[in-house]
Parts: sequence; C-alpha cells; structure tokens
Amino acid sequence: MKKPWSGRFKHKTSEKVEAFTESISFDKRLWKYDITGSIAHAKMLSKQGIISQKDSAAIVKGLMEIAENINSGKFGFRKELEDIHMNIESALSEKIGQAGKKLHTARSRNDQVSLDLRLYLKEETEEIISIINTLQKTFLEISERHMDAIMPGYTHLQRAQPVLLSHHFLAYVEMLQRDRNRFEDSVKRIDVLPLGSCAISGTTLPIDRTYTAKALGFKAISGNSIDAVSDRDFAIEFLSCSSITMMHLSRLAEELILWSTEEFRFIEISDEFTTGSSIMPQKKNPDVAELIRGKTGRVYGNLISLLTIMKGLPLSYNRDLQEDKLPVFDTVDTLKACLEIMTEMLPGIKFRTERMRTSAGEAYSTATDIAEYLVKKDVPFREAHEITGKIVLYCIEKDITLQSLELEKLKAFSPVISKDIFSVLDPAESVKARSTYGGTSPSEVRRQIKRYKKILK
Amino acid sequence: MKKPWSGRFKHKTSEKVEAFTESISFDKRLWKYDITGSIAHAKMLSKQGIISQKDSAAIVKGLMEIAENINSGKFGFRKELEDIHMNIESALSEKIGQAGKKLHTARSRNDQVSLDLRLYLKEETEEIISIINTLQKTFLEISERHMDAIMPGYTHLQRAQPVLLSHHFLAYVEMLQRDRNRFEDSVKRIDVLPLGSCAISGTTLPIDRTYTAKALGFKAISGNSIDAVSDRDFAIEFLSCSSITMMHLSRLAEELILWSTEEFRFIEISDEFTTGSSIMPQKKNPDVAELIRGKTGRVYGNLISLLTIMKGLPLSYNRDLQEDKLPVFDTVDTLKACLEIMTEMLPGIKFRTERMRTSAGEAYSTATDIAEYLVKKDVPFREAHEITGKIVLYCIEKDITLQSLELEKLKAFSPVISKDIFSVLDPAESVKARSTYGGTSPSEVRRQIKRYKKILK
Amino acid sequence: MKKPWSGRFKHKTSEKVEAFTESISFDKRLWKYDITGSIAHAKMLSKQGIISQKDSAAIVKGLMEIAENINSGKFGFRKELEDIHMNIESALSEKIGQAGKKLHTARSRNDQVSLDLRLYLKEETEEIISIINTLQKTFLEISERHMDAIMPGYTHLQRAQPVLLSHHFLAYVEMLQRDRNRFEDSVKRIDVLPLGSCAISGTTLPIDRTYTAKALGFKAISGNSIDAVSDRDFAIEFLSCSSITMMHLSRLAEELILWSTEEFRFIEISDEFTTGSSIMPQKKNPDVAELIRGKTGRVYGNLISLLTIMKGLPLSYNRDLQEDKLPVFDTVDTLKACLEIMTEMLPGIKFRTERMRTSAGEAYSTATDIAEYLVKKDVPFREAHEITGKIVLYCIEKDITLQSLELEKLKAFSPVISKDIFSVLDPAESVKARSTYGGTSPSEVRRQIKRYKKILK
Amino acid sequence: MKKPWSGRFKHKTSEKVEAFTESISFDKRLWKYDITGSIAHAKMLSKQGIISQKDSAAIVKGLMEIAENINSGKFGFRKELEDIHMNIESALSEKIGQAGKKLHTARSRNDQVSLDLRLYLKEETEEIISIINTLQKTFLEISERHMDAIMPGYTHLQRAQPVLLSHHFLAYVEMLQRDRNRFEDSVKRIDVLPLGSCAISGTTLPIDRTYTAKALGFKAISGNSIDAVSDRDFAIEFLSCSSITMMHLSRLAEELILWSTEEFRFIEISDEFTTGSSIMPQKKNPDVAELIRGKTGRVYGNLISLLTIMKGLPLSYNRDLQEDKLPVFDTVDTLKACLEIMTEMLPGIKFRTERMRTSAGEAYSTATDIAEYLVKKDVPFREAHEITGKIVLYCIEKDITLQSLELEKLKAFSPVISKDIFSVLDPAESVKARSTYGGTSPSEVRRQIKRYKKILK
Repeated sequence: MKKPWSGRFKHKTSEKVEAFTESISFDKRLWKYDITGSIAHAKMLSKQGIISQKDSAAIVKGLMEIAENINSGKFGFRKELEDIHMNIESALSEKIGQAGKKLHTARSRNDQVSLDLRLYLKEETEEIISIINTLQKTFLEISERHMDAIMPGYTHLQRAQPVLLSHHFLAYVEMLQRDRNRFEDSVKRIDVLPLGSCAISGTTLPIDRTYTAKALGFKAISGNSIDAVSDRDFAIEFLSCSSITMMHLSRLAEELILWSTEEFRFIEISDEFTTGSSIMPQKKNPDVAELIRGKTGRVYGNLISLLTIMKGLPLSYNRDLQEDKLPVFDTVDTLKACLEIMTEMLPGIKFRTERMRTSAGEAYSTATDIAEYLVKKDVPFREAHEITGKIVLYCIEKDITLQSLELEKLKAFSPVISKDIFSVLDPAESVKARSTYGGTSPSEVRRQIKRYKKILK
Repeated sequence: MKKPWSGRFKHKTSEKVEAFTESISFDKRLWKYDITGSIAHAKMLSKQGIISQKDSAAIVKGLMEIAENINSGKFGFRKELEDIHMNIESALSEKIGQAGKKLHTARSRNDQVSLDLRLYLKEETEEIISIINTLQKTFLEISERHMDAIMPGYTHLQRAQPVLLSHHFLAYVEMLQRDRNRFEDSVKRIDVLPLGSCAISGTTLPIDRTYTAKALGFKAISGNSIDAVSDRDFAIEFLSCSSITMMHLSRLAEELILWSTEEFRFIEISDEFTTGSSIMPQKKNPDVAELIRGKTGRVYGNLISLLTIMKGLPLSYNRDLQEDKLPVFDTVDTLKACLEIMTEMLPGIKFRTERMRTSAGEAYSTATDIAEYLVKKDVPFREAHEITGKIVLYCIEKDITLQSLELEKLKAFSPVISKDIFSVLDPAESVKARSTYGGTSPSEVRRQIKRYKKILK
Repeated sequence: MKKPWSGRFKHKTSEKVEAFTESISFDKRLWKYDITGSIAHAKMLSKQGIISQKDSAAIVKGLMEIAENINSGKFGFRKELEDIHMNIESALSEKIGQAGKKLHTARSRNDQVSLDLRLYLKEETEEIISIINTLQKTFLEISERHMDAIMPGYTHLQRAQPVLLSHHFLAYVEMLQRDRNRFEDSVKRIDVLPLGSCAISGTTLPIDRTYTAKALGFKAISGNSIDAVSDRDFAIEFLSCSSITMMHLSRLAEELILWSTEEFRFIEISDEFTTGSSIMPQKKNPDVAELIRGKTGRVYGNLISLLTIMKGLPLSYNRDLQEDKLPVFDTVDTLKACLEIMTEMLPGIKFRTERMRTSAGEAYSTATDIAEYLVKKDVPFREAHEITGKIVLYCIEKDITLQSLELEKLKAFSPVISKDIFSVLDPAESVKARSTYGGTSPSEVRRQIKRYKKILK
Repeated sequence: MKKPWSGRFKHKTSEKVEAFTESISFDKRLWKYDITGSIAHAKMLSKQGIISQKDSAAIVKGLMEIAENINSGKFGFRKELEDIHMNIESALSEKIGQAGKKLHTARSRNDQVSLDLRLYLKEETEEIISIINTLQKTFLEISERHMDAIMPGYTHLQRAQPVLLSHHFLAYVEMLQRDRNRFEDSVKRIDVLPLGSCAISGTTLPIDRTYTAKALGFKAISGNSIDAVSDRDFAIEFLSCSSITMMHLSRLAEELILWSTEEFRFIEISDEFTTGSSIMPQKKNPDVAELIRGKTGRVYGNLISLLTIMKGLPLSYNRDLQEDKLPVFDTVDTLKACLEIMTEMLPGIKFRTERMRTSAGEAYSTATDIAEYLVKKDVPFREAHEITGKIVLYCIEKDITLQSLELEKLKAFSPVISKDIFSVLDPAESVKARSTYGGTSPSEVRRQIKRYKKILK
C-alpha cells in the first residue's frame, strides 16, 4: 500500500516502524469527528470555488457511506495507513476516485488532528458536565431524604462538632459545582477552529475559515497557524480538571470505605455494589469505592504524561504530540465511569442514622458550644477555650460525659455558667444553633438545597 | 510558652514535634493577609455586638502596630507558637491584654488559613496576569520591529515552510493569552470568603459574613462550612495554570537555546544574559533559558505534590493540608521570576535575520507552494503532492535547489506547469501568499498585532 | 567582582541574571564536600607534578581555614560568585594568592558539582539506612512487648482474619528492609568518582584518577567523561527510593490516624506527639502522622521534578541540571525528619489491646477457619467456602455471633461439622493455627523477630 | 453465572458494577503465569496430603488443557467471572468437576495475583535486560566502525571541545549499563514467593512454601503474610527503573532529532525509519525518535499513577491494587518497543563525519587546550583561562579562527607561548591528548570498548 506522502522517498517504511508509529489502533475512535470535519471542509472548498460542486457532493456522499460502514463495523482499518485521517481519505479515493484526492486540499493532518480532538473533547466535556449535574442532584435527593440525620463532623478524622449528614453531602455538591465551572471554562479554550492552519503557516488557497467554523459550531477561530498546530493546552486543561474531579471522588470514596467499616458502621452499601472474597466467606467489600479511589492515580498519571510530553518541545508540530490521545481517551472513560457508578451506588446506600447520632453526641463534640456559651457571657474566647479544655480533661479523667456533669461542678470551672448550659450540650441543639450562611443548621442546609435546586435544574 | 489550646492536655508537646509540625518558618510570609483578615474580622465582631467597639478598636490598633513591627523586621517569630496565626494573636494579647483574647471569637485556624491563602493567591495571580501582559507586549514590540524577517517554520524540527519571525512570536502571544484567560478564570474560584466556616460547621454566634466579604473585597461567600475548610482546589488550579505557562516558557527557552547554537546561529543573546565556563574560555552559554526550561520540572513537581496530598483525604480539615503552602509559594516565586527574566532578556536578543532568510529558502521549503500551484491548475491535491515529491527527490539526487530547475525539466513532471511557477518558489512570495486568517502573511500578521494591541492595552 | 570566566565577555552579567542563576543560596550546603574534594584534588595535582608540593600545601591549608570559617559562620557567601565552588575558590585566592589560582587545574565545575553531590548523597544515604535500621528495631521492640495482642487483620478495610499486632508491625519491618536494600543498591551507583572528566572530554594534563578515588573513598571511577557530567541517575534513584519509603510511612501514618479515631480506639498517641485545636477545646489530633502522610506528596513531587528536568536533554552538561539540588536536599530533610519522628512517636503509643481483641472476635472474622475446618474434613474448598458463606448470612440475619450457634444448627449446614468446630472459632486459636512460614502464629512471629534481630544487629 | 463468593450475599452484583470492577479484559494477559502457579500449588497440596494425588493429577491435566485452549484462542473469557483467576478456576471445575473445587485450597486471590505479577515481571525484566544488552552492543559496533569520526562535544548545546563520536556513543553504553544494573537489582525484590500468605494471615493447612518456591524457581519466600498481600514495591521499582531508561532514550532521541536538522546535518536517518508529510512533499521526519521522546511522558505517568495509588493505603490488600496492572503492562510494552526500534534504527543511520569534523574545528573549541598549554608552561590555571578568554574575544572581534593567529600576536597575550602552540589547536590532536581514564582519546575509547565487550558478552 503506497503511502500518500511517498513521492520523495526511495525506500519503503519498515514494517516495525509502521507498527511503532501507527495510531489507527486508538485514533479510530475519532472517526465520527474526522468525517464531520471533512464534510464541512469539502463544502467550504466548493463554496470558495477551490473544488467543484460536483466533487464536493461526491466527497460528502462518499464520506457518509464510509461513516455508515464504520458504524456498522464493516470498515477495515489498515495499520499501514497510519491513522484515522489516511484510512478515511484512502477509502474515499477508492470509492469515488479523483474527487477523493481533492479532499486534502488546503489542510494538513496537523490541523486536522487538532480539529478532531477538539470536536471530540467538546462533546465529551459537555457530557461530563451533564453527568456531574446528575450526581449533584443525587446528593440533593439524599440530603433531603435525611434531613434529620446528625453525624459527627470530623477534623483530623477526630470527631469535632455535630453536623447534619445533609450538610456533609452538600460539601460534595459544592466541590462538584466548582468542577463543573472549571470544565465549562475549559470549553472556551476547546471551542476554537484550528482548520485552515494547515501544516504550519496557513495556505495560499482562498479558504473561508469563518464558514467552516460556523458549519462545525465553533465559537472562535485560531488566530495563529503556528500556535494552532503546536497547541495541546486544551487537552492538558481537560486532564487537570479531571484530576481535580477524581480527587474529589477519591475523598468521597475514602469516606464510604471508612463508613462501611465495622468500626464506623455508618452505612451499608447494597449487595449489588459490593463483592465478596475468594477465600473469606464473610467478607463484603466496598470494591467500587476502592477502585474509584485507585483510579485517581490513573488520571493523575495521564496529566503528568501530557505535561511531560509537551515540556521543552520546539514549535510547531512534533510527532510527540501523537501521544496525547491515549491519556485523553483513558481519562474520559475513567472519569465518566467513576462519576456514573458513584451516581448509581449512592441512592442504594443504607444510612445507620441512629448510630451516627449516638457518635455525634460522644467524644465531647459540643465542647466548642460551651466555649461559645462562655463568650456570650463575656468571657474572652481564648479564656473560654481554656476553661472548656479543663472541663473536658476533667471529664476524660473521670470518664464521664459533658452532659452528666453537675451544675455545681461546672460553676467551679467558671462562675458565669448557669443552668442554660445544658441546652448547648445537646448535639441537635448544637447543630440548630449554627445558622449563619454556610452553617450546618437545618434551616441553612434547606436554604442551600433550595439554592442548588435552582442552579441545577 | 503555653499553647493556646493546651487546656485539655497534661503533657507538653515534645520539642521535636514542635520542630516537625511548625509552619511559621514559611507561613510567616502570609502575615500581611493574616492581619488584614483579622482587622476585618474584629470590625465585624463589634458591628455585630459580639465584642465591644472599644475592644475592636484596641485590636485594630494592636494589629497595625504588629504589622509595622513585622514590616520593619523587628518582630520575633517563635516556633513554639506554631504558625503565623498564633504568633500574631499571641503578640496581640501581650500588647493589648484581654481584648486580644477576643479576636479568635467565631473563627478557627481552619477558616483563617484558607482566608490568608486566598487573599495571597488572589493578589499574586493578579500580579502574574499583569506580568504576562507585559511579556505579551514585549513580543508585540519585537514582532513589529522585525516585520521583514523571514525564517524557516519547523515541523518535526525539519524546515517546513517559510514564516515570518513575527508570526512565530505571535504564537507565543496566543499561548500567553490562553494562560491569562486561564488564570483569570481561576480567580473566580479563589475569590470566595471562607471566614465564618470556623472549625467545620459554622458558629452559634451572630456573625455577618457579607460584611466581612465586602470589607475584604471578596466577590462570593463559601456556601458550605465543611467544604470551605477542606478545599484546596483553588491552589491546585493555580499550580495547574502555572504548569501550563511554564510549559510554554520551556518551549520558548528550548527555541532560544537551539537558535543560539553555532548550528542555527539565528540569534545572539546579549552578554548580560549569558554566562561563561569555569574551564572553557570561549564559552558563552544561554544559562537563563536553560534554567527556565529546568524550572518547569519544579513547577510540575509542585502540582503533583498537592494533587497527591489531597488524594483520598476524608473531610474536613486534615493537617496534611499544611503542606499546601510550600508548593504554592515556590510556584509563585518561580513563575514570576521566569516570566520577568524572559521579558527582560528578549528585547536584547540580536536576530541574525540574514541567516534566517537564507535558511528559509533552503531545504525545498516552498514545495507545498508548488503543490498548491498545481491545485490551482486543477490537479487533485493528492496527485499534486506526489508530483511535487518527485520534483524534490530529483533535486535532492542532483543536489540542486528548486529555484534552479529549468522550466522544461519541471514540465516533464507535470505539463500544467508554466513560467509563473517561479514566483511561488520565492520564500517572500510564499509568505505573502498565506493571507488567510491566522496565516503568516505580513498583512495578516499586522492585523493580529493590531488585534492584540487592543486586547492588551 | 570580576567573574572567573569573564575574559571573553565585553559586558557584565545583569544583576537580575545573577539573582536568577545563582545557586549559592542553596548549594552552600555542599561546602564540606566541596572542600574535601578540592583537598584530594590538590594533593593529586602535586603528586603528579602538575602543581608544586608547596602550592599544594598552601591550598590545603587555605581550604582548611576556609572550612573553619564556614563552620563557625564567619564566611561571607557572595551571590555574584554564583555557587559554592566559585565562592570557595575566590576566597582561597584572596587568602593564598597565586597558588589558589592553580586549584581549578584539570577540573571543571561540571565534574566538581557531580563530585560534591555524590559525596553528599553517599553520606546521607548511609545515614538514612541507619535511621531505617533504628525504626526497624523500634518495631521489633514493640512487637516483642505486645506478643499477646490480637487484632483484626483487614482487607478492603473490612475485618478479615485475626492477626497478632506484632505480625502487623513486622509487615513494616519487611517494607523497611526492602527500603534499606534499595538504598544500599543505589549506593553502588552513587559511589563513583566523576572528577577528572573535567568539562566534558577529560584533560590533557597527566592526572591520576585512581589516587583521587582512593583519597575520597570511592569504589569506582566513571568510565566516560561525557556521561559523567551529564548523569543525574543517582539523584533520581535516590528520589525514587525515598518515594517508596515515604509511601510506606504514609500507609503507617494512615493506620495510626485510623486507629486513633473514636471509632477504632485501638491506640492513644501520647500528648507529646499530638496537638490541639485553636477553637475546639476537646480536640487531640494526630498531627504528626497527618503531616508524614502529607509530606509523601512533597517527595513524589521532587521525583517528578527531576525526571521532568532530565527528559529530552541533549548531552552533556546543561544548566537545567542545577535544578537537581533543591529536590534532593528537600527530600533528604523530609525523609530523615519523617523517619526520625516516627521512630520517636511509636514507643509512646498506648495500645488498647483489650479493645483490639474484642474487635478481632467480632464480624465473623474466623469464617475462613470454618472453611478450612471443612476442607480438613474433605469438603472441596469451593464448597466449604459456600457453606460457610451461608452460615455467616444466617448469623447476620439472626444478628448472632458464630460462637453462639448451636451444634445442631451448624450440622444443618454441613453434616461433617462436629463439636471440635468451636475451637476454630476462637480468635486466639485461629491465630495460633497459622504457623506456616510468614504466618501470624506466635511461634512464627517469634521466629521472624529472631531472624530480624540477627539481620539488624 | 454464580459468583464463587456468593454464599453470604442475597442480591446479585449489578451488571454495571461487574463492568466497572472486572479485570479480565486486561489481566487475561497473565494466564500463563496463573496456570504455572496453580500447577505448582496443586502439586504441593497433594505432596502435603491436603488433596489427593488423583485430584492433583486431574487439576494439572485440566489446567494444561486450558492453557492450550487459551493459547490457541479458543478459550472464552467471561467478564462476570471478574478476573483471570476465577475464569481459569471456573473452567477447571466445569472440566474436571469436584477436584477443580479443591484448587483454591490454602490460597487467596490476594496472594495469587501477587504471584502472577511477580512471575510475569521477572520474565519481562530479564527480557528487557537482554534487549538493553543488544542495544549496548549496537553502540559498540557503531563506535568501532567510526573510530575516526571527530565531532563537537557540547555543553549547554554550545560547542565545548572536540570529542570522538565513539566516545559520545559510549556515554549511552554507560547509561544503559546502569539501567541494566538497576533492573538486575530490582529482580532481587521481584523474585520472592508470596503464595502461602493467603488472604492476609497465612493458613491453618500444612502447606510447604519451600516446595512451591523451588517448583516456580523463586529465590526467596515472603516472610510476612500481611506485607506479602499489601506490597507492590516491586512494581513501582520496575516503573522507576523504566522511567530512568526512558529518560536516557529521550536524550538520545533528542540528539538524533537535532542531528537530523538541516542546521546540524550530522546524520541522515534511513527512509525506512522516517515518514513523510500529508501536505509538504519535501518532508522527511524523524518520527521514530520523536515518538520515543514522547513516550517518555507515558512511562513517567505510569510511575506516578502507581505511587499515587499506594499513597496512604492502610494494610493489607485493598481493591485499589487492581489498578497496578495497566501501568505495568503499558510500561513493559512501551519500553521494549522503544529499546527495540532504537536498536534497529541506529545501524542504518548515515553519519556525515566530514561535516562533524569541520564543526568540531570551529567555534574556538580548542580554547581549553590553550589554557592547559599555558598551565604546562607554569601559568596558574585561572590566569591561563583569562588569557585564553582574551585571545578568543580578539578572534571573535576580528572574525578569525584560533589557527589563523600569528605567533607574534599570540605572544602579545602571553610571552610563554611558542611555536608548539599550533599543535594543540588541531581538533585531532586535542582529542588524542585526552587520554586519561574515561577521556575521549582514541586509545582510551578503544580501552573502554574492550572493557564493555567483556562485560556484555
């Protein structure tokens, strides 16, 4: 099979080199975008009189037949044709003859591959945004269903203060909202037409890039041809956004794993979302959450791959850039799979709210409430903190709870303490009292749910 | 020195632990933001009646004196006070007594450190955006000064097509513009007030977060207290934006190094920006460019550090987060230094435009122009490409240039070739003819310069 | 101050460039190794008759005085002299005149900096090995002290089978042993003399590299001068070994954090090794463990930094290599600090062995023992596994323990079950029965402790 | 299809979860090692009387038939059976009935997967070592063939001193030798039998691990069952060794790319190992070298993936570990392909030695020789360096070569200069004179070739 660029060569490419350099085994995934781009390109060429209307029509028809062939699995991809671009162009020429040889006018694989990847990533990013939206809604639903559940809030994985389970889940809604916004911002830099940059410097033919951009739905047109074929920022930015989202999922996964332990016993993941052990008959493992946590490493690795690839490359296109595709594809697949399985797993989780509430009341978790109680009685905070610390230490040594302390005992620590102290020691009261913006009180949490319902609808 | 949280403890922290856990040695850099935040906090507390006007005034006055002390180098930072927050609070209490002990009312170091880092990063990001702007302008100036310079455009580091030096530099203006936009987008996620989230769940005291946000110039207020103290997305996003910018600088650095070689000889960096060898008396090395290229690794490393730190952390605050500061500080310093030194080095570079132009005319770099010439004479592009390939091969074997081929010889390759072919073989004509949007023609390059002047002013 | 390489330059280095390119602010840390190397070099030069005995003696004396000055803090490092090498050489020439100008004969900063870094890393790696050794011994001591402690062994953070606490800690002894072996192997590649490679190609002067190697205690001499000045493998390998060790420490840290939770309550870290909260008076946080876990990200980042720096660099020395030092220094400091603080923290930890043992007996953790019991009665393992699974499910639904099942009930699941089943349900018996090599039985654990005592002594 | 661990479960795994958690799509690659391991395990079980000789024989026969089926592509892998282990065990039970259900006695997938991966990595590492050996020999052959070729040695990519091309290539032999040694060292930590560790704590059955180790050719047996199922150090170490080797290849690739430019013109890569452009007919691109350089990022990414995955995981086995396989497999494939294609490409490269030699004589590259000439005439090196710097500056300003300076002119710079100076200015003499160990002289290079021939044979 003759290479489309073989004119200047005396010897054929070695087969090992073909195997080493081919990308068709993975970039065939871009076929849809390649054909869409070629159709728009062919129409522009004829509109500008660079090729005839007849040739253009033949090209469009041919490409659509090829699309059907690929879609139905009948297309035979050939490694010796290197990549998706040459596979499709060759098939087109075989099918429609001379007209097919005109398709590559005023373009290069350098701008074509950037076009394909941008069309692909734009579509995928929009889908990811929509999946994130669904996961956020799932959190809202669960939050509404469990408005009564009080759990210990943790810092340093030590019980800190009682919080609403809903408040805890809304934290993830916030993270996901930032993820969405980040992906949305990144689309601005994906949504740029590179076609027309050709190999590096543009073309001498009278193309109309605005037409092509409109046909393909691009909001902007690249302003510098050298940059356009050298640039993979949009792919790195996608990997970076994905890494942050995976990091969020890894934190959630970690919590689900912790809460599933015998020690926490806050949740039970349903049988459908756990697996067993090949040797230990009693085991029920939170494998899905563990795999999500593990796959975070995979996405980080993809990010560092592409950053490394681009480091120190002189302009413009270098073949190193071909290595951009696998990390991007793998990240798209991994991120979508993790977001989706999380979305499906969460609603089936059974929350042991009784146990959560008990835990929330232990370990002196309302100590801060005492300190703030003292502040309201005009004790400077730093002193209030110290007084409370001493009360806690006393309880630890006596192995008693804050609630079980007698008023007289409490007065010994500070004379300003009176009977009303006991109301602040109750976790439910503690939660209710934190009603400032962003706080954990039921009223505030309901307000945030309402706010997000509006944002997400 | 007693720890401010020592009430509940029976034994003192070990000195080794103090040395291991302290952050004052590096977070003292945040003193300005810590004090600004505390002043706004104190004013809010008094406005809300949580502390008295008198106490608030004493606090503000005390903090301003401390600021002066630090600024003039007279403040003694103490490791046993752990961090910048406790160093300042302790100094305040020493200075103004009881009132100082009220400052930490309704806040925690968890929301305070997030506040400080956000104030710091917002300011630094805005400064970085401004430095990028200056570098872009520098490129525009150089581009305007060298509008006549034609150089070889490279793909695969092989000469591909002639381009304008100005067009090449505008590619960097494009990259930097994306960098700016990315930093600008990131500010939306930095510019959020976390204060009022306290340790994890908000406070029972009647604070006014809107007041504080306004006082500190924040555009938004965090909507979930648990998220607010757990979140370092804004820092990771900063490191990610910085990594991409450094990657761009590493590509530019690589080119400056290549162009400085004896082999390329496209540029000469001035004596002021090169250094010599301790052993080889003739050497003049492009050290600045090499260091910029090397420092890219440093910033990538910082990004992967923070991503790793955050992976799998359960909510909310964990002490691991303290490790966010060094990678952020180091990246701010590195990125600013690299951008600034590049901005200063570029104007002094001497461009050997004569040599560039000669190189641009060699190596059959106008072969694509022949192919497009043939297309205009109705040869399908794929055939035109092959015909041209054969012409090039013929020239290589004869060791002659395209320009030196006789018309008859050319006609033997394709009968459609006529005398007008010779005009397309001239690099200057080749460049001039690429006048579509984003192309390398002088007219188009001037248009892009004009466009950017408007954007950057 | 004139640069030692200024002969060929007409203009002075810009001050900003000096600030950007200097390394003295961090490589001054190598002063001891630089001087040691220079002394050996001077002696070799005079032995070979390249300089006189008198000059050599003056150099040695001068260098030793400089060493004293630096050691006592009296030496003034100067940024305009770039690095530690030039700072010392200049001071020497100021002190002893002409003879000082002869020291740099037959060497370059290119081989000199490699020498310094190798001497430094060899010493530090040996120290790290020794600290690891101490940490291993600490684990052995704790293991011996707690031979009776039975805890749940976890897979997927679910209780799997009862194990000895000592067995669990011996797992870390194994990891640390691999770490040691890895560091020891790496020393082979550090322990190579680069001096004599000069700038890139060796020297025309009759040096004796064997003499210098012996004087400095190197086991090998670099065999290729170009490689010697280009190579930073030994530093990357150090960072890689360190990353794996930090990963191990991060796993241990994670466990200490988990075990310190209210939910696990397996351990209590002493007051000396925990810190409190600025707002929540009751908190006692495992900060040291959290910071160790976090610092893992820092060391990973250092590894990726240097890998990135070296990627795609043409031979031989490039200034990018200067960026090797900070990641190496930071890793040495971080790793040593983490190993040491862990070594000090562990002995003071209070193990709540009663609670561990109770936990070990819950959650059907001896189910595998039932399956193996059935295997011994000739039930194929896969069937035994299924039968046991059903027994466990029955118990879960009835909310009873395995031990509380009546024999008749058990027989209903499998007729081969007889009274002796009850002995395998006891965690202590379960542990005792796992006496194969590497198993958790007390006899085997004692054997492993003994084995390690021999290895570590 | 019933899961082998389904006894304790009431509900079936969701299909989406099956798709998310399965590993058979990639771990089927381990089938050979899985079967080898199972055969050894079955024999040990019968030797120990845990299963009968008859059962063992049936298992072995069944497994060998399965191996044949897989090898010939007739085996149907099933996703619902999760992984390679369960696919093979299930097929075995279908084939031989009850005996098949006994194979999993005294083992778990936790130790089994570690066994498979170790057998695989041991074999692959040994193959990689052998491929490295071949690449080293290729360098030796090329070096011997081009002993006369003198080229410029570079520091900072500036011509520094003339070196032999052979000397330059021997630098890569050195790097590869370290790579080999590193891989060899790593094998010590791969070559350890984990089987017998079972799920986490060993087994109550009387297994003989020494027998299994011997049968499978392992040099050591894991000493701690908890560690054995938690440990992936050997995989990380493999990725780290691979990253360093790829880094070396990326440097070589960079040089081949540079040397192929029109500007350097040091080499011509053969048509078989280059590819053309879809648009520019004259292009001949060093794609293979570019892809090798790019693939470095991929391997770095794999390293950071696994490091991230392992960070902060509590002991022992967690499902996250399943994510170890893809980065390892991808690295094995990438590294082997890059080493092999490089080995095949190098011998066909045409070296333009005439041009190399000319370049070596330009740019004052023998200036160091003048300085050392002066040293031999008793000028202190630092002064000699400065004198030579001034000579070079003079030549630059006059635009003349060192060789063309008249003796009188030279004497004006230093009176000690006499006629013999001209011999040191010749690149060939310069090279010849650097004959100390590791230097670039032909005699020394020949010695190093001889040394390596012995090492590599």
